[in-house]
Amino acid sequence: MTTPINFQEKFKKFSDHWSPRVIAEMNDYQFKIVRIKGDFVWHQHDDTDEVFIVIDGKMSIEFDDHTIELKSGEMIVVSKGEKHRPYAELECKVLLVEPRGVVNTGDAGGSLTAPDDIWL
Amino acid sequence: MTTPINFQEKFKKFSDHWSPRVIAEMNDYQFKIVRIKGDFVWHQHDDTDEVFIVIDGKMSIEFDDHTIELKSGEMIVVSKGEKHRPYAELECKVLLVEPRGVVNTGDAGGSLTAPDDIWL
Repeated sequence: MTTPINFQEKFKKFSDHWSPRVIAEMNDYQFKIVRIKGDFVWHQHDDTDEVFIVIDGKMSIEFDDHTIELKSGEMIVVSKGEKHRPYAELECKVLLVEPRGVVNTGDAGGSLTAPDDIWL
Repeated sequence: MTTPINFQEKFKKFSDHWSPRVIAEMNDYQFKIVRIKGDFVWHQHDDTDEVFIVIDGKMSIEFDDHTIELKSGEMIVVSKGEKHRPYAELECKVLLVEPRGVVNTGDAGGSLTAPDDIWL
């Protein structure tokens, strides 16, 4: 039986930052929610575009030559291979869409690397 | 330059129902917004899952053996080959995610079939 997924209900199930949780799969793509706060690492995903949709709050993404601000009700597509650094002064709730198996820190690795297939 | 896409700003650009507009592409997937009101046709997509995310309002999707209600801040994945019929009593604003080339009426065709690649 197909049932609706409520973003805010799912967000209540965890509180840590920079650790995406899978809430749905469509074909070989995953929908993940993540709470972000503070600075992430510069990184890129060499094999795929990546979508950020802000559910609640606001965030920024720094690129090589410009920075964008993204607020609730807005989305952005970060292109394959595009170096970027997400950050948020206050906590921001985000929905990510990307192929199954994408690691959050891309080519950069490091201590903010999260497991890539944790389901809520 | 990568720029944010604001859902409500995009919705202001059209007013007709059941005619999805493409607002972004990620790899070979498209993000489309659509205003829905009234009854759609029973149909299925034999080659792909399909995601509905409600941006504003509420809608229902009837399946063979149950009906779900979906409201703002909720999403659902309709599985490949799953027969379904969306409807909304009052106008509802929806974000769809599906592979490039998907036709809205799937296998059913008919007068509600919309062009599949109209960009906003």
